[in-house]
Amino acid sequence: MSQSTVTQIPSDSVGLVQTQYFQMDGMLALESGQELGAITLAYETYGTLNAAKDNAILVVHALSGDAHAAGRHAPDDKEPGWWDMMIGPGKAFDTSRYFVVCSNVIGGCMGSTGPGSSNPTTHEPYAMDFPIITIGDMVNAQRHLMEYLGIERWYAVAGGSMGGMQALQWAVAYPERVERCIPIATTHRLSAQSIAFDTVARAAIMSDPNWAEGRYYGNATPANGLAVARMIGHITYLSEQSMHDKFGRNLRNAEAYTWGFTPEFSVETYLHYKGDSFVKRFDANSYLYITKAMDYFDLGGQAGSLAQAMEGVQSRFLVISFSSDWLFPTTQSREIVRALRWNGVDVSFMEVESPYGHDAFLKEADEITKLINGFMR
Amino acid sequence: MSQSTVTQIPSDSVGLVQTQYFQMDGMLALESGQELGAITLAYETYGTLNAAKDNAILVVHALSGDAHAAGRHAPDDKEPGWWDMMIGPGKAFDTSRYFVVCSNVIGGCMGSTGPGSSNPTTHEPYAMDFPIITIGDMVNAQRHLMEYLGIERWYAVAGGSMGGMQALQWAVAYPERVERCIPIATTHRLSAQSIAFDTVARAAIMSDPNWAEGRYYGNATPANGLAVARMIGHITYLSEQSMHDKFGRNLRNAEAYTWGFTPEFSVETYLHYKGDSFVKRFDANSYLYITKAMDYFDLGGQAGSLAQAMEGVQSRFLVISFSSDWLFPTTQSREIVRALRWNGVDVSFMEVESPYGHDAFLKEADEITKLINGFMR
Repeated sequence: MSQSTVTQIPSDSVGLVQTQYFQMDGMLALESGQELGAITLAYETYGTLNAAKDNAILVVHALSGDAHAAGRHAPDDKEPGWWDMMIGPGKAFDTSRYFVVCSNVIGGCMGSTGPGSSNPTTHEPYAMDFPIITIGDMVNAQRHLMEYLGIERWYAVAGGSMGGMQALQWAVAYPERVERCIPIATTHRLSAQSIAFDTVARAAIMSDPNWAEGRYYGNATPANGLAVARMIGHITYLSEQSMHDKFGRNLRNAEAYTWGFTPEFSVETYLHYKGDSFVKRFDANSYLYITKAMDYFDLGGQAGSLAQAMEGVQSRFLVISFSSDWLFPTTQSREIVRALRWNGVDVSFMEVESPYGHDAFLKEADEITKLINGFMR
Repeated sequence: MSQSTVTQIPSDSVGLVQTQYFQMDGMLALESGQELGAITLAYETYGTLNAAKDNAILVVHALSGDAHAAGRHAPDDKEPGWWDMMIGPGKAFDTSRYFVVCSNVIGGCMGSTGPGSSNPTTHEPYAMDFPIITIGDMVNAQRHLMEYLGIERWYAVAGGSMGGMQALQWAVAYPERVERCIPIATTHRLSAQSIAFDTVARAAIMSDPNWAEGRYYGNATPANGLAVARMIGHITYLSEQSMHDKFGRNLRNAEAYTWGFTPEFSVETYLHYKGDSFVKRFDANSYLYITKAMDYFDLGGQAGSLAQAMEGVQSRFLVISFSSDWLFPTTQSREIVRALRWNGVDVSFMEVESPYGHDAFLKEADEITKLINGFMR
């Protein structure tokens, strides 16, 4: 690689990074009552852990995310990590001050143990023998990583969407380990409508003949079903307004209709492109397991109410929602804020005006940075 | 059948009805430039056409609807026609005064010529050799039915959703033939988001291996793809609130999670049921053609603006939208109303407060009836 390519990395980037892999000892007791062993967690770190080990921030990702939150794996990578806008020298999660850890989730397909991993009993991929995992299980596995890193308390835990669920779970399940909690564009439990979208996504995958009851590894994958699932997801990530602004009724190639079924509206070609590119990087069974984990997530469920579930919380909170997010709308963030305040928790809340819908947590860098800077100070 | 069964038909029902079939002479010139011949239109009528032939109301249906709008085909039918709440003696479309006609659309699979019909050239089902049809073509075919029935002017044309698009098209394309126009829960053109949902529905069907480029007649049908398409549709027909009220996070059989992938949330089992029952009565290719017709519908597109397209309108209008309809939201009805008023058209507009989302046009009988009674008087 040439020197000129390397110097293109911006000064506020964490630069070149590598994914690391944590091998957990023993078995993880899952919420379902089952156990999962031989767990690997993929993670990345940016910045330096200080001697007191009190400057560590955990960043947790959404459904299709991974451990690669910032920087680049190679100088010619087209895109940096998924939250590069937030992580780096001088950024909201300032790597000149903080040690930022991004952990992948179990159940996924991005280097951590999931349904595509080898089952130690059979030496075949788990497929649907992989146990159901929950947001609580994901966080429990991350707690083992935390211990391995020698960190007793996170300076902050932050994430958007399913990452926000993990942040909430951290603050409730391990209150003494979380100094600050930053759930963004998230919810304490999915609405019927969100479960409905996940239901259709799973139906698309599981009705693809290539799915073959999940035993497709080594054969053709249920790419069609997974593409449809991803297309549905993308509709829920954008707002009606942002879809209108971005695509309207524009046609891809011409002013005139083609009078056929080849995708021709810009929004059609966009969705097909998103679906087709997703299947190259994501495992359909992981999509099943992770959406199910989200559907099952109900932070107040066992305690009887969200307020009761949050009784032991010790973190300070910054809750951020976005005005045009209809997947996890502001009303759901307000329920979180209300339950926290009922418990006397120090909570700062902001609904950011944004046209970008749910995706705003990946787009509104300036607004989120300002809020986090104020909160972390 | 026993007398006691027959007498269960309510006094405000049109009673037992039969679908009729109109065979059109000649070819229909389509908007695409193609032609379609040997057209059959399924239709039903309720009430009596008066001597002046000026009491005829045309009712037009939505995506999955048919000619059977009211009454029952057999005394033991579980459900009456799809708009029975609106059509009958003393109802909004009062069959003691009006002659109500409900016409099926071309492109469908409910008795009218569509992709599953026999191609006169090949004597095989058209499949994807069926030409692309538009809302304008559907209405043009209905105009031939109108002539066959000897009607010169509809007392009113009314419909919800895609039926509303046909009503709008009638008033614009054949202004002198429509005295009153009642578009309900509809739009003059689909938004990017609505096109997006149709895109995913079509992708689900067309990626089902059984679809086989549309040539599945006589073989296994793309039932999985069509079921997924229908499930997506149902999410858009309900509001988030109505889904919450109807299902919440309720589980089907128990208080406890099953820790598996069998549908267990009530909303999951509902959607699967709706998907599975739909494939028994609807043709997947018709779903492709009709959603495409909706995507193409753009009433103001050719004229340059909606207001210009509506310049020649001679009908009086009653436009009805529903507060929680997010598929065709009130903003889109307001655009219709604005364009009509710009042309000095007599238009009455009401946004009905309803929790039922888009489906409200099939549910809010009392409110719609009041509005129509006032308008028709």
